[in-house]
Amino acid sequence: MRVLGIDPGLTRCGWGVVDGRPGARPTAVGVGVVRTMPELDVELRLLELHTAVTALLREHRPDVVAIERVFTQNNRGTATGTAQAAGVAALAAAQADRPVAWHTPSEVKAAISGNGRADKEQVTLMVTRVLGLAAAPKPADAADALALAVCHAWRGPAQQRLRSAAIAGGLGAPVVQRTLPRWQGVAAR
Amino acid sequence: MRVLGIDPGLTRCGWGVVDGRPGARPTAVGVGVVRTMPELDVELRLLELHTAVTALLREHRPDVVAIERVFTQNNRGTATGTAQAAGVAALAAAQADRPVAWHTPSEVKAAISGNGRADKEQVTLMVTRVLGLAAAPKPADAADALALAVCHAWRGPAQQRLRSAAIAGGLGAPVVQRTLPRWQGVAAR
Repeated sequence: MRVLGIDPGLTRCGWGVVDGRPGARPTAVGVGVVRTMPELDVELRLLELHTAVTALLREHRPDVVAIERVFTQNNRGTATGTAQAAGVAALAAAQADRPVAWHTPSEVKAAISGNGRADKEQVTLMVTRVLGLAAAPKPADAADALALAVCHAWRGPAQQRLRSAAIAGGLGAPVVQRTLPRWQGVAAR
Repeated sequence: MRVLGIDPGLTRCGWGVVDGRPGARPTAVGVGVVRTMPELDVELRLLELHTAVTALLREHRPDVVAIERVFTQNNRGTATGTAQAAGVAALAAAQADRPVAWHTPSEVKAAISGNGRADKEQVTLMVTRVLGLAAAPKPADAADALALAVCHAWRGPAQQRLRSAAIAGGLGAPVVQRTLPRWQGVAAR
């Protein structure tokens, strides 16, 4: 399974591509950061990010896109931009017909280091070790994206089985086919 | 000036198109709501919303897209979805080469009713009156989107002049040309 991990952000959006499966040592395929300039209007930054993620999807053809699930309570200023960046990355995945999986930072930390409260340095160290990289990926956003991809390669299949079982047992939302957009518009005059 | 107002949301995204200028009575061109089903995965809901907003841009050819600036502090659950919806709407505007203007709910309320703390009923009442509509637009998201468009038609030009003056005076960000996406990718192995 090939996973594109995305640590969303407007100023720095980390990405990392990993080949892996549960219980096996994963392989790093690519890693990097998409940067957009804070001086640009937000919609143009989102356009740059969308273009970059679309290009990554085309280049690496991942089976699934794993995006960090960010809660918007911490930092008012950047949280909105982070959520917008995550939304645009998820849109690019949907447009490329790839499923999206969301993982919280603590899930990722627990998967990669065994400790849901690991700090950035520990995560980078473990990512470097697990993937057998010659040097630590920089900046931290790039390492986080790789950690996210590893987390999904290891845990995604089990999560998917649980989800399918829950749906089959009537505990979750039904599986809904992709539908055409529905919207209502009426002439106001 | 034609304004497409967008009250962002995943479950209900209000939209309203208004022709207007400062100091004149605006005209409503269209109003409606884009709905996506909560049972769908988020990325598919964002895809539906993006498709719908793109279609609205093509149909109504607004000069500017006004989107409600939502702060993500209030409601953890829906705030992320709202920010993602706003990001996808802003992306659609950028892809159609339309500028985006952001207005806070209190700005919109103040512009339409003279009271930044007006409630939903007051906003709907004033929108109906100002635009000379035969009936109140429903649901509230649709009325909010029209109010946003009216707010921008009335206040946008002055805001833009202030912004240009601030930039010319060196107080703000420089005017930056749209640039191609920049991202760095290195092979990890």
